[in-house]
Amino acid sequence: MNSPLVKQVLGRVIAIECALMLIPIFVSLIYGESPAPFVLTILIGSVISYLLMRAQPKSRSLYALEGFVIVALSWMIMSAIGCLPFIFSGEIPHFIDAFFETVSGFTTTGATVVTDIEAMNKGTMFWRCFTNWIGGMGVLVFVMFVLPMSEEHSMHILRAEMPGPVIGKFVPKVRDTAMILYVMYTVLTLVIVVLLMLGGMNLYDALVHAFSTAGTGGFSNYANSVAHFDSAYIDYVIGIGLLLFGTNFNLYYLLMARKFKDVFTNEEFRWYIGIVIVASVTIACFILPTYGTFANAFRYAFFQVASIITTAGHVTANYDLWPVITQVILFMLMIGGASAGGTNGGIKISRVLIVAKTLKNEIVNQIRPREVHTVKLNGEVVSRSTQHTTMVFVILYMLIIAVSTLIVSLDNFDFTSTFTAVVACMGNIGPASGVAGPVGNFAAFSDLSKFVMSMCMLLGRLEIIPVLIACTPFAWRKKF
Amino acid sequence: MNSPLVKQVLGRVIAIECALMLIPIFVSLIYGESPAPFVLTILIGSVISYLLMRAQPKSRSLYALEGFVIVALSWMIMSAIGCLPFIFSGEIPHFIDAFFETVSGFTTTGATVVTDIEAMNKGTMFWRCFTNWIGGMGVLVFVMFVLPMSEEHSMHILRAEMPGPVIGKFVPKVRDTAMILYVMYTVLTLVIVVLLMLGGMNLYDALVHAFSTAGTGGFSNYANSVAHFDSAYIDYVIGIGLLLFGTNFNLYYLLMARKFKDVFTNEEFRWYIGIVIVASVTIACFILPTYGTFANAFRYAFFQVASIITTAGHVTANYDLWPVITQVILFMLMIGGASAGGTNGGIKISRVLIVAKTLKNEIVNQIRPREVHTVKLNGEVVSRSTQHTTMVFVILYMLIIAVSTLIVSLDNFDFTSTFTAVVACMGNIGPASGVAGPVGNFAAFSDLSKFVMSMCMLLGRLEIIPVLIACTPFAWRKKF
Repeated sequence: MNSPLVKQVLGRVIAIECALMLIPIFVSLIYGESPAPFVLTILIGSVISYLLMRAQPKSRSLYALEGFVIVALSWMIMSAIGCLPFIFSGEIPHFIDAFFETVSGFTTTGATVVTDIEAMNKGTMFWRCFTNWIGGMGVLVFVMFVLPMSEEHSMHILRAEMPGPVIGKFVPKVRDTAMILYVMYTVLTLVIVVLLMLGGMNLYDALVHAFSTAGTGGFSNYANSVAHFDSAYIDYVIGIGLLLFGTNFNLYYLLMARKFKDVFTNEEFRWYIGIVIVASVTIACFILPTYGTFANAFRYAFFQVASIITTAGHVTANYDLWPVITQVILFMLMIGGASAGGTNGGIKISRVLIVAKTLKNEIVNQIRPREVHTVKLNGEVVSRSTQHTTMVFVILYMLIIAVSTLIVSLDNFDFTSTFTAVVACMGNIGPASGVAGPVGNFAAFSDLSKFVMSMCMLLGRLEIIPVLIACTPFAWRKKF
Repeated sequence: MNSPLVKQVLGRVIAIECALMLIPIFVSLIYGESPAPFVLTILIGSVISYLLMRAQPKSRSLYALEGFVIVALSWMIMSAIGCLPFIFSGEIPHFIDAFFETVSGFTTTGATVVTDIEAMNKGTMFWRCFTNWIGGMGVLVFVMFVLPMSEEHSMHILRAEMPGPVIGKFVPKVRDTAMILYVMYTVLTLVIVVLLMLGGMNLYDALVHAFSTAGTGGFSNYANSVAHFDSAYIDYVIGIGLLLFGTNFNLYYLLMARKFKDVFTNEEFRWYIGIVIVASVTIACFILPTYGTFANAFRYAFFQVASIITTAGHVTANYDLWPVITQVILFMLMIGGASAGGTNGGIKISRVLIVAKTLKNEIVNQIRPREVHTVKLNGEVVSRSTQHTTMVFVILYMLIIAVSTLIVSLDNFDFTSTFTAVVACMGNIGPASGVAGPVGNFAAFSDLSKFVMSMCMLLGRLEIIPVLIACTPFAWRKKF
């Protein structure tokens, strides 16, 4: 592996992170808080960045392996440095807690160990929610501006980083693609900010919630999350906003190119919308007795469905009190997730579709073994190789959940709490059921469990393979 | 599909079932109970059998499709007729309950809806446990003697029926293979009967428990299951007996052929033994505080591990009270199951191995894309096609669990109870956690849930594909 080049890139990533921390310093100054925790972090980050950037790569060639390793390490190092302000401010004094919180931010999970959220400083709270926004579009775009390399190499990063199996290059140059993504992401975020302010939020609240909506992260500066505002308008702005950020961003490019037909015939998009409608209406029917009118029940059901399928994890109601079937539906949405190419986590609907069609194909093949049957998505044949890789992904996903559940169960919480907490971390959702449910948090878990769940968040966010490879000893051999 | 031939075969299956019911009639007479429920069932069965056998097949050709349909329908019809004695005797008066109990018997699940087990008649109880034994070796051997057809056709049945992906023909003729299996199965059962009687059981108890041990079914005539006898000797006889029946029967043939090396280098067998030892010792350590000495803790841990990995479901302790991590370990053993080619349910260790190696292979391929890597089991290359089919199986297995959990959650039991009940039925284990836990039963579930879980038991026992195909409308078209 080309370690010097990897070091150099990581150095640049840290430099960018330090630059981004100037914003929370500004926020701290506005609210008359001490910016010391951020200043100190920037100093430490700068030193580490400088040391890493001193590496002199003999060659500038970068292959898939380096791409995977860079992506995995970027998120880990960004989290390790990004958690320092929480420690220095004394608001999350314990390292593993602060690390968990920051991984949760950058992976747009939204799981929290903070028990008294509203007691946090404005500056650190801003940074906490800002990590959701930075993580949202991924170190992808971030790394794009940092990496000085040719097109085919960048594609390795893109492949490693971009959520989901469907990667469309909008325009030939990767750097231009990244720029377009970045602009779309920012514009959509600003629209949400404005809409939230029209609903009566102040600028700070609107920014914080727009960050966690854009990143589908789920952090909020209120203990009650979005329920704090108790406004149907805000529920719908955030709910619909989440759905927009859980859509494959390629579709927006298609919209801009006026290829409307391609958008509406996109199978993943149709299933996505269909699942949201069916799940919302079904849950609304089941919770009708609690909420009186259908309109009211639908409001809470829709918000929770949008929040869970996009793996954000904002809450407006304690769904642990709803009928068990609604919890099972939400749990399935957690595992499934929304679209590939959105900012959400989860397995992604396109993968679920490929697997479902592969299963159907296999059964048809058993009945009519002499005919040739193919699997198609959006009218195009999905190769056996892609079917294979997709199934590998899904099984790996389940396996990681199983192993992590085993370790976390050492804490001796009930099975539902243990299992759903792991699933919520792996899928980058945030709140689970029981101990870490909509009215709970992750503070009570042991350090070991917090570490394991931090790894789950990274594995889930980075689509497993890069993290596994970075943890494989023989990826680190100089020659192979 | 060749429906007349299918009907004829099913007619013979019912005739055999009626013949087997003569044994519980004999038991009833010994204990001075009325044999009327069995006599009435035999009368009804004979009429149905006669009507089905009147079908005049134009051709005697039988393809994979017919094989799958025959196997799936055999188990359904055997259960539908086999449940009649419970209804006629008034001991399980409700049809869906009696059907659930009988499906549970023939699929060797051992899940029960009977709340007062010890109040049952000796005759019906004998029949209940006898279904475990009949189901154990599968309608496989059963159908072998019934089906008048040539070798290559029988292999379709064998493929559809035999648990697990590894089918070894011991000897060239399928009928001889079936005979050898049948003899081994009976001899091993008799050995268990004798050993249990040496431990102080009376003949009736020994027979009943030998049946459910051989079939890895888990039915018992005592409410406390094997804990009733409170004997370490009996615990170990049944525990080791279960492990023997959860071993691939091909290995016994290899032993008889003195191919010892092939047995001990068999990867599935080595993992099987390894998993049992590691799981038993680990659980014993965790439950040590409850049981005082390690020997005592190991006794309960080993029994539960053997009972769960072989998907029998006998119990000697209320494991719901053990630390959560031991429950998670047991839960994983439930899903994994023991060996392919044993009488157990579950996914089977050989499938888990194939999938695990496929996953590892995929990761290595990502790191070294230019080399060719293969997956091997027992030194032989596992084709991409087998990897594909095995992953399809595992994902289908999970998917059926997910969909069934959704339906069963309508009953509004807690998530753990709902989920583990479905997993316990799908894996043919029997007891789950919570409502249907080691000290509970399935009586409280709704009729819909009982039906869904009955289907899960059939799907799990028949390795999914045959049942799915039999339920596919276009399998029933005359031409395709």
